[in-house]
Amino acid sequence: MRAVRALVLERQGELALRDIDLPTEPRAGELKIAIRTVGICGSDIHYYKHGRIGAYVVAAPMVLGHEAAGVVVGIGAGVSGFAIGDRVCMEPGIPDLTSRAAKLGRYNVDPAVRFWATPPVHGVLTPYVVHPAAFTYHLPDNVSFAEGAMVEPFAIGMQAAARAAIAPGDTAAVLGAGPIGIMTALAALSGGCARVIVADFSKEKLAIAARYDGIVPVDLRQVSMGEAVRRETGGWGVDLVFEASGHPDAFKGIFELIRPGGTVVLVGLPPGEVPVSIAAAIAREARIETVFRYANIFDRALALISAGKVDLKPLITGTFDFEDSVAAFERAAAGRPDDVKLQITVSD
Amino acid sequence: MRAVRALVLERQGELALRDIDLPTEPRAGELKIAIRTVGICGSDIHYYKHGRIGAYVVAAPMVLGHEAAGVVVGIGAGVSGFAIGDRVCMEPGIPDLTSRAAKLGRYNVDPAVRFWATPPVHGVLTPYVVHPAAFTYHLPDNVSFAEGAMVEPFAIGMQAAARAAIAPGDTAAVLGAGPIGIMTALAALSGGCARVIVADFSKEKLAIAARYDGIVPVDLRQVSMGEAVRRETGGWGVDLVFEASGHPDAFKGIFELIRPGGTVVLVGLPPGEVPVSIAAAIAREARIETVFRYANIFDRALALISAGKVDLKPLITGTFDFEDSVAAFERAAAGRPDDVKLQITVSD
Amino acid sequence: MRAVRALVLERQGELALRDIDLPTEPRAGELKIAIRTVGICGSDIHYYKHGRIGAYVVAAPMVLGHEAAGVVVGIGAGVSGFAIGDRVCMEPGIPDLTSRAAKLGRYNVDPAVRFWATPPVHGVLTPYVVHPAAFTYHLPDNVSFAEGAMVEPFAIGMQAAARAAIAPGDTAAVLGAGPIGIMTALAALSGGCARVIVADFSKEKLAIAARYDGIVPVDLRQVSMGEAVRRETGGWGVDLVFEASGHPDAFKGIFELIRPGGTVVLVGLPPGEVPVSIAAAIAREARIETVFRYANIFDRALALISAGKVDLKPLITGTFDFEDSVAAFERAAAGRPDDVKLQITVSD
Amino acid sequence: MRAVRALVLERQGELALRDIDLPTEPRAGELKIAIRTVGICGSDIHYYKHGRIGAYVVAAPMVLGHEAAGVVVGIGAGVSGFAIGDRVCMEPGIPDLTSRAAKLGRYNVDPAVRFWATPPVHGVLTPYVVHPAAFTYHLPDNVSFAEGAMVEPFAIGMQAAARAAIAPGDTAAVLGAGPIGIMTALAALSGGCARVIVADFSKEKLAIAARYDGIVPVDLRQVSMGEAVRRETGGWGVDLVFEASGHPDAFKGIFELIRPGGTVVLVGLPPGEVPVSIAAAIAREARIETVFRYANIFDRALALISAGKVDLKPLITGTFDFEDSVAAFERAAAGRPDDVKLQITVSD
Repeated sequence: MRAVRALVLERQGELALRDIDLPTEPRAGELKIAIRTVGICGSDIHYYKHGRIGAYVVAAPMVLGHEAAGVVVGIGAGVSGFAIGDRVCMEPGIPDLTSRAAKLGRYNVDPAVRFWATPPVHGVLTPYVVHPAAFTYHLPDNVSFAEGAMVEPFAIGMQAAARAAIAPGDTAAVLGAGPIGIMTALAALSGGCARVIVADFSKEKLAIAARYDGIVPVDLRQVSMGEAVRRETGGWGVDLVFEASGHPDAFKGIFELIRPGGTVVLVGLPPGEVPVSIAAAIAREARIETVFRYANIFDRALALISAGKVDLKPLITGTFDFEDSVAAFERAAAGRPDDVKLQITVSD
Repeated sequence: MRAVRALVLERQGELALRDIDLPTEPRAGELKIAIRTVGICGSDIHYYKHGRIGAYVVAAPMVLGHEAAGVVVGIGAGVSGFAIGDRVCMEPGIPDLTSRAAKLGRYNVDPAVRFWATPPVHGVLTPYVVHPAAFTYHLPDNVSFAEGAMVEPFAIGMQAAARAAIAPGDTAAVLGAGPIGIMTALAALSGGCARVIVADFSKEKLAIAARYDGIVPVDLRQVSMGEAVRRETGGWGVDLVFEASGHPDAFKGIFELIRPGGTVVLVGLPPGEVPVSIAAAIAREARIETVFRYANIFDRALALISAGKVDLKPLITGTFDFEDSVAAFERAAAGRPDDVKLQITVSD
Repeated sequence: MRAVRALVLERQGELALRDIDLPTEPRAGELKIAIRTVGICGSDIHYYKHGRIGAYVVAAPMVLGHEAAGVVVGIGAGVSGFAIGDRVCMEPGIPDLTSRAAKLGRYNVDPAVRFWATPPVHGVLTPYVVHPAAFTYHLPDNVSFAEGAMVEPFAIGMQAAARAAIAPGDTAAVLGAGPIGIMTALAALSGGCARVIVADFSKEKLAIAARYDGIVPVDLRQVSMGEAVRRETGGWGVDLVFEASGHPDAFKGIFELIRPGGTVVLVGLPPGEVPVSIAAAIAREARIETVFRYANIFDRALALISAGKVDLKPLITGTFDFEDSVAAFERAAAGRPDDVKLQITVSD
Repeated sequence: MRAVRALVLERQGELALRDIDLPTEPRAGELKIAIRTVGICGSDIHYYKHGRIGAYVVAAPMVLGHEAAGVVVGIGAGVSGFAIGDRVCMEPGIPDLTSRAAKLGRYNVDPAVRFWATPPVHGVLTPYVVHPAAFTYHLPDNVSFAEGAMVEPFAIGMQAAARAAIAPGDTAAVLGAGPIGIMTALAALSGGCARVIVADFSKEKLAIAARYDGIVPVDLRQVSMGEAVRRETGGWGVDLVFEASGHPDAFKGIFELIRPGGTVVLVGLPPGEVPVSIAAAIAREARIETVFRYANIFDRALALISAGKVDLKPLITGTFDFEDSVAAFERAAAGRPDDVKLQITVSD
């Protein structure tokens, strides 16, 4: 442990760029990584504004940030496959690999997982981080640090696409055109969907989504989702619905959107309990999948980005220096409708 | 069409055993079947008491009954594989086999399906029925007409077990020990579960369930479901929960019952909207399957019964003559806690 | 039945454009379709050259052609959803929809299926055909007849991609760069693969494949498949191998190409028995899927083409008039290395 | 390390019960276990007789035995969930849990896995072993050490049943009535199959299999497998075939045994290359799964044994004292047709 500079959430509503004690030496199986780019996530902003997300409460100062890319600068004992200078991005959750969930390949739902910038675990808005090699991934040469720091949020969309078990040529609908909604739509398109209807009430968000081939934007101020789906599918319904708004209203009529035997994938996190028509789900014999972070996704997300099948760069709508981190958070907290993802650059 | 004797639901609350016009000659692809045994389903009783189920309203006199076994007495053009005298049971839903859902193998969710004793389609509490050979199944020699008439309700449990995608040795929980709950538990056990916890508030229903090896009865008046599951699984959770009560309260804490990455199968049909914690489902990354009747199940249900892996006979708690059909319905409508399934015998 | 002009395979090696009796009036559930474009398939050529494929022997004159698009000109009783003038393409296999396989959603493997231009069933190189509406699909406005006639061969690649159960971002290898190999690669890419290695011994075929983004061509005269896969995957292996060459040699070392737990999809049809290392398959715990034609694929193939995710037009390397059908077959039989698909235009 | 008594395979054909240096102190995450029962596996005998299995060569003295149950006598740092005196059985393969395969939940195919009694790793025919807690499983109270030592071979059958993705009520066939064939049949039955046809040329092996309800024995000296399957399934074919003989002849006509769309699961390990009819597999659009040991199976195998759904005790046909280990191996090597599994008891 040594005192290093970091963006610290002191408590609800109070950020400071200051020194804090963090581990700096890689142990067996770990890497030391110089951080180059960190994206700001909605959860970072939520902790900043509210001091908690559900049961996770910020009870002590915590470094923020968990969407990160950087360069390997130190290598712990027993690590193979990495060299000093390697460009990498990192999966922010560290499970107990001996756990029952991890042995099943579902390490994301291991109850003991430790996740960056989720209390009481520190995040990575700081020049260096120590991290297990098993959860560190090489950036292909044609993937920048900025794109590398987009892999984490994109991985959520990818996990949604993976759990959906898309059949090639499926038609999907995504409810919500925020960062996760758009990235879910892009994952669904690159993962086999022919077309993805993306619906929102925000003209600005839909304009961003509409730049991508294959996305059919639907402005919910002008047409209902049911009507849009009927029109686009000739009355049959979409094969897949991705709920990415986290808004309770999105569940009204959600099962009427799918075709008989279709699937609903729940990505967004509505607070409390939501009224759901079980009878409507049963009438279509719906399958419902849920998405909790991701597992075994980073390598395949990078493969799609590197292959040019997914272009996340247009979603980066602002970049700040590490020294301006607090300003970056203020802008993110303001929630401009034309902002998708803000990033912070950490230089040596 | 010819006037034949049948148990007719004239309107809500009014039954009559009287003559009514029904088809009697098999067309191409159809069989004429002499009915031998018909079980009384909860839906028959519901139409009798309330005159409707959801959008299905009894607007004209309708013959009741859809759980049936009998003997082939006539064979339409182009039918192969059946002979006069064959003992059979029948799948009560007749889909449009050229429909998009049917071509996908999901003919149960074909919107155009016609289902016995669902308005305006007549049921089979009558001496003869005409039915497609494609939805008629041979009874193995060691399966009685009474058991043959149990295949239909058991098929719902089997569909639940099939959609669950049970892994051999799974532990399951069934919420509700009514006929569907018990038959779902039996399907889950014969379908690969090592143990099935069955929970209810009724001592009598649990006593019936407890007669079967592999069923662990849980009296919800004495212990909560969460506590029972923790005790039986060492805190890990069950692999599968089957919701078979149709009661909104069953959804409280339902996702806390499963292990990380577990599955909830929705069989019961709660009215209206039910408050559901989406966040709890996501925290376990639950898969949720729903069950609408069944497809491609009757042959495999018969295989399990014939092999002795499932014994449905103890669930037949009363048998009535056709002439006493109204009395049979009165008893079924009374809902005695020690009744599971009542049947009516139709002789020549 | 009426005498109409058609391309008739009289017997092995003998083609004639002449009149032959064919049905011309649609029955219940059927459409009458004016044929506009028909592609020539390798199986057409095989029947022409050899007079048989396996157990299917040309014992009587047979009309060739099964890759077709056209216009609805007649509508049988009970058909909904089609109007005179609708532009369509047709699925050439007609199963018994009441069969056990069809009810399971696997109508392609119904033993009773009747398939165009497979003895003794006539094909569609003729101005009109009568066909079930259930196996006729609307062409989207932006899909030409030529593309519509490509749906059938593309559907085989799509079926391969569907059975593969591609996870988004998978890396695949396709063995063989013939028409089916290339179309399988395109289906895999549009179905979720990040990259597809396509291997062949033909420089010309690889040049055609290499025009598509995402395809990594491998010239087997210069590098072994094992070496190519190791190089492209850092030694881990590809997630999926599609065997599309039908050549017995392709099975040598095929399981060493996949990663642990990977999948091999068998599309090509090698004659006789092929030596296979079962131990090598087991060592990777491989899953092996096989592809027999397709089921429930045409609509999703059309969705991908219409969305612009798959461009089949570059694969059409020659177009002939109906009156020049025999010349078209001669060129197809010659097997020029730069030919992928030849088509015949049938005008009114 | 300390010299302890063990059954050592000195080299091909030479066994000795003698002292050898083995680790005796549990490290972090490990347990020390007093061995009580060890079963003799075909692979132990194969190493004894031939000195190698494929690429695995006995180049130095190696302790044999990998089917084991015992009692916890020491607990390493960081282990929770175990206490001195706990009765346990052990999974003999130790993967690198940080590997790509392990993170996918497929730790059995991690190339770096170390497996007991597979050169150069020592087995457990010795009074004590040190083993990771993550691969040690509690024996339920009603499961004996002898049954606990049967879990390992049964786990192979269970892995076969798990990969088969049995649908409740499936009919299966198992080729080969050796220990693995019978245990695969028992796993298939407890995992959802209604009936399992078990075929062999040995009257004695079939007599053992025939003791179990649900197993239909087929004597291949009297009837062909094709004929038996046609008779038992009315010509439709079985849903699943498990190849458990490892004999190349079993592959002749194997795909004709399954129904259209059926599955073949490869468990047995034929040497070299086997002639396979790919065309026959494709004609049924078969799915083929392969089985390499097991992953995430021990707990569910124990659940089925403890629940009484599987009784492995009749398969234990001989028990020897540790001091008579060499004699036990001689009998196992003799291959008596009425022997299924021989075990060795290791007392304190």
